[in-house]
Amino acid sequence: MELLQTNTLQSAREKLLDYLMGKHDKKTVKLMDAEGQVLAEDIRSLSPIPSFRRSTVDGYAVLSRDTQGVSESIPAFLENVEEIRIGHEATSVLKSGQCAYVPTGGMLPEGADAVVMVEYCEPFSLESIAVYDSVSVGRNVVNIGEDVESNGVILKKGTTLHPQAIGALASAGISRVSIYTSLKLTIISTGDELVSLDKVPELGQVRDINTYALESLAKKNGFDVVSTYVLKDEEELLKSAVLDSMQISDIVVISGGSSQGKQDLTARVIDALSEPGVFIHGISIKPGKPTILGYDKQSSTALIGLPGHPVAAMIIFELIVIWVKNKLIGKNDETYIYAKLKTNVGSAPGKTTCQMVRLSDFEGEYFAEPIFGKSGIMSTLTAANGYTLIDMNKEGLHKGEIVKVFLI
Amino acid sequence: MELLQTNTLQSAREKLLDYLMGKHDKKTVKLMDAEGQVLAEDIRSLSPIPSFRRSTVDGYAVLSRDTQGVSESIPAFLENVEEIRIGHEATSVLKSGQCAYVPTGGMLPEGADAVVMVEYCEPFSLESIAVYDSVSVGRNVVNIGEDVESNGVILKKGTTLHPQAIGALASAGISRVSIYTSLKLTIISTGDELVSLDKVPELGQVRDINTYALESLAKKNGFDVVSTYVLKDEEELLKSAVLDSMQISDIVVISGGSSQGKQDLTARVIDALSEPGVFIHGISIKPGKPTILGYDKQSSTALIGLPGHPVAAMIIFELIVIWVKNKLIGKNDETYIYAKLKTNVGSAPGKTTCQMVRLSDFEGEYFAEPIFGKSGIMSTLTAANGYTLIDMNKEGLHKGEIVKVFLI
Repeated sequence: MELLQTNTLQSAREKLLDYLMGKHDKKTVKLMDAEGQVLAEDIRSLSPIPSFRRSTVDGYAVLSRDTQGVSESIPAFLENVEEIRIGHEATSVLKSGQCAYVPTGGMLPEGADAVVMVEYCEPFSLESIAVYDSVSVGRNVVNIGEDVESNGVILKKGTTLHPQAIGALASAGISRVSIYTSLKLTIISTGDELVSLDKVPELGQVRDINTYALESLAKKNGFDVVSTYVLKDEEELLKSAVLDSMQISDIVVISGGSSQGKQDLTARVIDALSEPGVFIHGISIKPGKPTILGYDKQSSTALIGLPGHPVAAMIIFELIVIWVKNKLIGKNDETYIYAKLKTNVGSAPGKTTCQMVRLSDFEGEYFAEPIFGKSGIMSTLTAANGYTLIDMNKEGLHKGEIVKVFLI
Repeated sequence: MELLQTNTLQSAREKLLDYLMGKHDKKTVKLMDAEGQVLAEDIRSLSPIPSFRRSTVDGYAVLSRDTQGVSESIPAFLENVEEIRIGHEATSVLKSGQCAYVPTGGMLPEGADAVVMVEYCEPFSLESIAVYDSVSVGRNVVNIGEDVESNGVILKKGTTLHPQAIGALASAGISRVSIYTSLKLTIISTGDELVSLDKVPELGQVRDINTYALESLAKKNGFDVVSTYVLKDEEELLKSAVLDSMQISDIVVISGGSSQGKQDLTARVIDALSEPGVFIHGISIKPGKPTILGYDKQSSTALIGLPGHPVAAMIIFELIVIWVKNKLIGKNDETYIYAKLKTNVGSAPGKTTCQMVRLSDFEGEYFAEPIFGKSGIMSTLTAANGYTLIDMNKEGLHKGEIVKVFLI
């Protein structure tokens, strides 16, 4: 164990990130299974898009110079040499004085360099069309590669694949993509008062919340939860669970009580089982001060002691574990909403304070109402829908200040 | 077919909602499988939470009146009758002059009505404690049912089960929940120019985008996509696909070209196969005007003709199909962000205009930059990350106006 001092949130994040760097594997999946996943490599187009010149309107493909000086009162008369069908190759080669009908999305014939909308044309004789509009080169045409150049980057590594990205990749003929695999996570919740959900608590006992809250938070954020435990506060039980978990997990989180004794137990177990062991014991954040970060080189597993209080455990999981995971895969589309604070709120100077809030909106503005929970865990959990971080150098925030609200 | 007129977006939504009302089934799932799902019934607590009086601190449970007048210089001396352990029942019944050690989260003994923090206490003799703080009734105590009353509503029908809600339900001993089942959806994309992703397009052909973009948009929003088709524009092919789909789907969407002829084909097929058939042909929205809504009573299937352009098809799917689905299950936690328009933007008076935008933020403010796409489908799809709706009674919006941006 190194000499330990209380770290700031940011330095704790970065130290953990250093240990886990390169931890994420890649895998190839079918495009349709990639929604919500993060790209592990740049995607380049296999061919230019579009791969042929397309009309953006129903109309007549022309040589633009044939329409010079044309107006509603002075039409040009052009020979109609082809009726191009959607989905088929245009076979003619237009010469001056000729035109060809082309539908929206249809292929332009060689020689043509613009399209006149059908509204400005009318059949004049069996084989000729009167054109009443003057068009410049490229009018109503999408050129080859105008959307994406051949071998151009369509989407960058680190992009989250939303539905519109899936559609874009389909149009480019990309049927498989390389995405990051999920980090494997074990969740251990310890406490002599805890019983699991399938048991009826006796007097003095409560049902465990943390395995449920953390597992669903982790799954929602793309972790692969490989194992969960609810344990009494006994060193041997904890050691055995951690040892088993290290073999199958990239990260093991252990949520325990907030008392010094329980935190010491978690730190002792992590140090006994890992090398270099605990590298951070205590983070200047509220809630979450007793957070412990450790690492084991041999199994390359991060071992993280979270606070026992469910709200604090979720906050630290979000602020540290999910933050590090997103950094590892280069994902940087954080979502937050700017909101006006509804009341003054105090904070702990020297610590980053995470304040739970309820976000609401009124006439074009967002408001954040601080939610304070006694130990009424459940009410706090369900009343808040976001949190804001108060800088460690501030003593609090004033009513009316603009804060970033991160949705939970 | 009724006499048809162009409908506003809102009236189109509501007519479709009327037809589909009551369409959603419920099912019971394990709590851990319910993250992101929507509750189909109110959840009531089985017992009060907490079910015993708990201390919120490490300290000594006391009769508060024994601490009246106590201060740092005038302690009270109380007989310590029990060391209550976390997770165990408190067995003593405190009388005046007595106290009992209780850890954070531990059970208060009968007779006690407050807890003095351990910081204000010290052992005085083998069996007595000196208490240096005066506490009022209820101090540092969570009473029975203070968090949730017995039989109280924990979460309401229509609530989306985020991780914190899952945690709250676990604490209440709820191991199964009733959620809404997914609506079954078939996606049909038609066009003579379309080839599916596994084929190499010839000149004049393009790969289908809509089955991919709509399937992932639908899945992301909780639909069960039971079937997809990419078809040529032939009446018999379309009829056969729609007929098959109606047997297994709650909703069938058919995205086709934007030309009048193709829209007529879709409307004709819907009318031929369903009763009452098409009830809306054309919505005053841009893009998306040619949208068709129909319904078949016998199979209780909604039949929806979407525009062929991928961006328009996704927008109409979002604005109508997803809107109706959310209304059906009473889900009303829309997420949007207020942003300042970066440039003027025009709109089509008499139509609701859906304008794609790119959201960015700078020094505590969000900005929405309108994204205009030629027919460069792909670039528009990946450059925008949201959209805003412009009222049908407006002629556009000015730079600097505040708009609601819905993220995509």
